[in-house]
Amino acid sequence: MGAVTERLRAMGLELPSAPAAMASYVPTVQVPVAEGRSLLYISGQVASQDGQLLTGRVPDQVDLEHAQRAARCCALNLLAQLDQAVGLDNVERMVNLTAWVNCTPDFSEQPVVANGASDLLAQVLGDAGKHSRAAIGACGLPKGVTVEIGAIALVRR
Amino acid sequence: MGAVTERLRAMGLELPSAPAAMASYVPTVQVPVAEGRSLLYISGQVASQDGQLLTGRVPDQVDLEHAQRAARCCALNLLAQLDQAVGLDNVERMVNLTAWVNCTPDFSEQPVVANGASDLLAQVLGDAGKHSRAAIGACGLPKGVTVEIGAIALVRR
Amino acid sequence: MGAVTERLRAMGLELPSAPAAMASYVPTVQVPVAEGRSLLYISGQVASQDGQLLTGRVPDQVDLEHAQRAARCCALNLLAQLDQAVGLDNVERMVNLTAWVNCTPDFSEQPVVANGASDLLAQVLGDAGKHSRAAIGACGLPKGVTVEIGAIALVRR
Repeated sequence: MGAVTERLRAMGLELPSAPAAMASYVPTVQVPVAEGRSLLYISGQVASQDGQLLTGRVPDQVDLEHAQRAARCCALNLLAQLDQAVGLDNVERMVNLTAWVNCTPDFSEQPVVANGASDLLAQVLGDAGKHSRAAIGACGLPKGVTVEIGAIALVRR
Repeated sequence: MGAVTERLRAMGLELPSAPAAMASYVPTVQVPVAEGRSLLYISGQVASQDGQLLTGRVPDQVDLEHAQRAARCCALNLLAQLDQAVGLDNVERMVNLTAWVNCTPDFSEQPVVANGASDLLAQVLGDAGKHSRAAIGACGLPKGVTVEIGAIALVRR
Repeated sequence: MGAVTERLRAMGLELPSAPAAMASYVPTVQVPVAEGRSLLYISGQVASQDGQLLTGRVPDQVDLEHAQRAARCCALNLLAQLDQAVGLDNVERMVNLTAWVNCTPDFSEQPVVANGASDLLAQVLGDAGKHSRAAIGACGLPKGVTVEIGAIALVRR
């Protein structure tokens, strides 16, 4: 068992099985770059937990805490995709996250929501989990989920 | 005539001329990576057909079928940009799509809309067309188009 | 003083200090690719000027001109991040911008808004500033800012 997987276990977390793509595309695409590394592009992961989607618009249908939990679930699904594609211990760096939050037009706490994902990645991956990021308000998301997060990681291939 | 161009023709499809950028930027930027390959970043392509924009918000102004057709048009424009930049037969892999759908806040079928693009790319490019993807609801899009899609491709340079 | 910094000064512009990340992530992540170059991923920069955020939704709360000025401020912050990370004279090419505009659902001039950023980058960086781009309507942005822009640059490392 790898070091990252052990840390997950120590945190009491278990990776979900990597969600299949919702439609006609693939979960990850790997692009070799320099020095024996690849960029791994990960499809937008939606908030799901125990096979249930975490849905609802913040803050009129669900609250900030629900949205943060949803972002954390997206991050777990990103880790699951990474694990399935290359193995968690081959993650060199989480490079970039784009976090879309299903919210009302006046909502402005997208960064607080996205921290649910960013904090988890830093806890699980350490320095390798520190990424660049954009957090955005979306006008509707697939299946009504509260948060969707796409990512790019640098991996050892 | 290359293999991909032949497949397009066999499907009864013709590439539009690559749309010029709508504003002060360029349609594509090519970045050399490893092994004689480049990443090609393609500007957001909007839905146009025969020089006409496909506009309207789904589902209150246009229906799902219109939106899927719009996504398919975006994909044809992506292919046209790829062809102009490096030639379609030099596409090694479609790496990533981001599909923004101009929709009402309660709309949740963004993946179904985006399939209009994803399905076409898989048909035209085969395995090379299988990409990672995010589909998002947008609060307004340029010129009122129904769909905008940005993409990254891996190309032989 | 480098050539790009001189051009900024000749334009009467001064770089802001690179904004710290608003939350638990980092402003930039550098990924080595081919030929002694790196891709630099820059976190979404929000519109700020002299330490004040430029907020408000276009066009019902602020006008087009305010939004363009906000986009220009985002671009200055992108340049500040580039300068802090690798130095402005090491920018080989601005590769991609994603510009999110806080707007009403019927607003369709996102490209005009984003030109506030694109024009500045072309003026400051010359041909190296010519990027691919997507401009999108967002349903709410962090702290209520009018514009947020994320970017990818190719830099000499």
